[in-house]
Amino acid sequence: MEVLNKFITIKRHIEGAPQESDFELKTESISLSVQAGSNDVIVKTFYLSIDPYQLNRMKSYSSSQKAHSFAVGIIPGEAIDAFGLGRVVASGHPGFEKDDLVAGVITWGQYSVIKGAVMLNKLDTMGFPLSYHVGIFGTSGLTAYGGFFQVCKPKKGEKVFVSAASGSVGNLVGQYAKLFGCYVVGCAGTKQKVKLLKEKLGFDDAFNYKEETDLKSTLKRYFPDGIDIYFDNVGGDLLEAAVFNMNTFGRVAVCGVISEYIDAAKRAAPDMLDVIYKRITIQGFLAADQMNVYADFLSTTADHLRNGKMEVLEDISHGMESIPTAFMALFSGDNIGKKIVQIAADV
Amino acid sequence: MEVLNKFITIKRHIEGAPQESDFELKTESISLSVQAGSNDVIVKTFYLSIDPYQLNRMKSYSSSQKAHSFAVGIIPGEAIDAFGLGRVVASGHPGFEKDDLVAGVITWGQYSVIKGAVMLNKLDTMGFPLSYHVGIFGTSGLTAYGGFFQVCKPKKGEKVFVSAASGSVGNLVGQYAKLFGCYVVGCAGTKQKVKLLKEKLGFDDAFNYKEETDLKSTLKRYFPDGIDIYFDNVGGDLLEAAVFNMNTFGRVAVCGVISEYIDAAKRAAPDMLDVIYKRITIQGFLAADQMNVYADFLSTTADHLRNGKMEVLEDISHGMESIPTAFMALFSGDNIGKKIVQIAADV
Repeated sequence: MEVLNKFITIKRHIEGAPQESDFELKTESISLSVQAGSNDVIVKTFYLSIDPYQLNRMKSYSSSQKAHSFAVGIIPGEAIDAFGLGRVVASGHPGFEKDDLVAGVITWGQYSVIKGAVMLNKLDTMGFPLSYHVGIFGTSGLTAYGGFFQVCKPKKGEKVFVSAASGSVGNLVGQYAKLFGCYVVGCAGTKQKVKLLKEKLGFDDAFNYKEETDLKSTLKRYFPDGIDIYFDNVGGDLLEAAVFNMNTFGRVAVCGVISEYIDAAKRAAPDMLDVIYKRITIQGFLAADQMNVYADFLSTTADHLRNGKMEVLEDISHGMESIPTAFMALFSGDNIGKKIVQIAADV
Repeated sequence: MEVLNKFITIKRHIEGAPQESDFELKTESISLSVQAGSNDVIVKTFYLSIDPYQLNRMKSYSSSQKAHSFAVGIIPGEAIDAFGLGRVVASGHPGFEKDDLVAGVITWGQYSVIKGAVMLNKLDTMGFPLSYHVGIFGTSGLTAYGGFFQVCKPKKGEKVFVSAASGSVGNLVGQYAKLFGCYVVGCAGTKQKVKLLKEKLGFDDAFNYKEETDLKSTLKRYFPDGIDIYFDNVGGDLLEAAVFNMNTFGRVAVCGVISEYIDAAKRAAPDMLDVIYKRITIQGFLAADQMNVYADFLSTTADHLRNGKMEVLEDISHGMESIPTAFMALFSGDNIGKKIVQIAADV
């Protein structure tokens, strides 16, 4: 059976912040059956995870592109692979059957043909809504959980600072840290987000970085006894200010540097004398390195949700056409929580 | 008995590179006997270790000063504490007797009165020259050994880059790394130093950074397969270039940032996207954190020396009056190996 498949692509490489005009909605005709002998899996998309790191893949050159398979450059005009979930409509792969619910690397399209079913897994919903599986149970959740517990190596009572704290990863880091017994302060870019962090997510405190003029002093005010752990989603000035306010043997988990994605001139230059004398560790990491705690992450998070101890922050838009706007919102700070696009309902 | 004690002090706080005029040779009259009931130890100085980190302590303000006891600010006009060794001339402390050979924190002076014998230890020369005990067996050696083995966590065959590689710590890091089975490239600031690294110290390769215009390309040339470990004594451009050329799961041990000591504007702003995608760890450390390997460090290093497997690079000047020049040489690159001042002979 042939169907029309709508998908989003980039018209050209993107430098700086993404614009509506950088994107194009394309339509192609595809067959919904796999060729004999092929081990392809064809997936109908239900939900897509919208993530800032994709912008690096859209640049004409990023030194990170050659360094890692997760950062392979996106080619203008072609489908954009992304984390999402849907149902198998046809499979030549022995591990998958028609109607299997699957999650993994699909595309910003209505249908995806996954060669060899690479990076695709059957999905057990565990009784939770489907959307949770591209957010809190997806790479955002694993990034937060693995990054906090394995990279930050927290001790109870430690002081934790989280930037972009209402974002997809930050809000979960803050919640895990609170449940673990840390003191947690987050920062975000609007009054509404700050209120949400304090009132809904249970952060000990929060502030709007846009209202601050001297971030070193700001952090000194929120952490009079210093910061033990900084979970960095932002980079730039905030990273410098956090290092300045860090305690001895402090740890910085570098998860993302969104302020630097759209402006390389904002790169952080932390004071290395602080790094030396305070024996600070600054460590970059990826969710892919955290698979050793994946089972633990799933069960712990499911328990917290069933016990009403965690909140799920989702920001869901609908339809292929909404993808560019949803993506751009990540860089203008318009989203709260996990940005998700629903492409089709599971009916 | 009263004697005249010559000591060096700073006239004022120092910003930027140190100048001859920043220092003053003072003379005071001191008693070479301890008061009844005191637990002081009076030490006659033989050798002093001359170290770049002291410059940070001479600044009017350094954020690291408040962070760590090793970085306590030096007060103009007062004696400057420093690592060195000598003989006890009088002791009120039960752990020390007259004529004991001791090493530890004394002063840039002919005699030091050590209140309570804090940070002073009896010295076992193990049959090696006295000067070795302020260099290769002192904090420089422990910094190199602990920093390389505990912070860099090397594996055999890994590619190691060392900056300031003919300096007190760098030359030892390179030698330990070679003996351990790594591939080692060092950089230094003169042709003579580069030749020494390759011909005398057995580095696999070395270059003069002053002859290079694009350090990223330079490191690419010396490490076509990337850098696994960067032992950083310099900071600034070199740190950025090393991060750019680093392999996945690379480690940067930040031991010193001499280029930033005299010019904070040279601060490194490494590309955090590289740090994330390549999961790089950047870690500051101090010799004081490496005491758990102290015994191992001493015995391993002594064995290497007895077996002729390590070279000792010393740059010894003589007399109190030579201290300012010796210290300034650290920042102009005039020293080769460990900078030491001999204050008196052990006669």
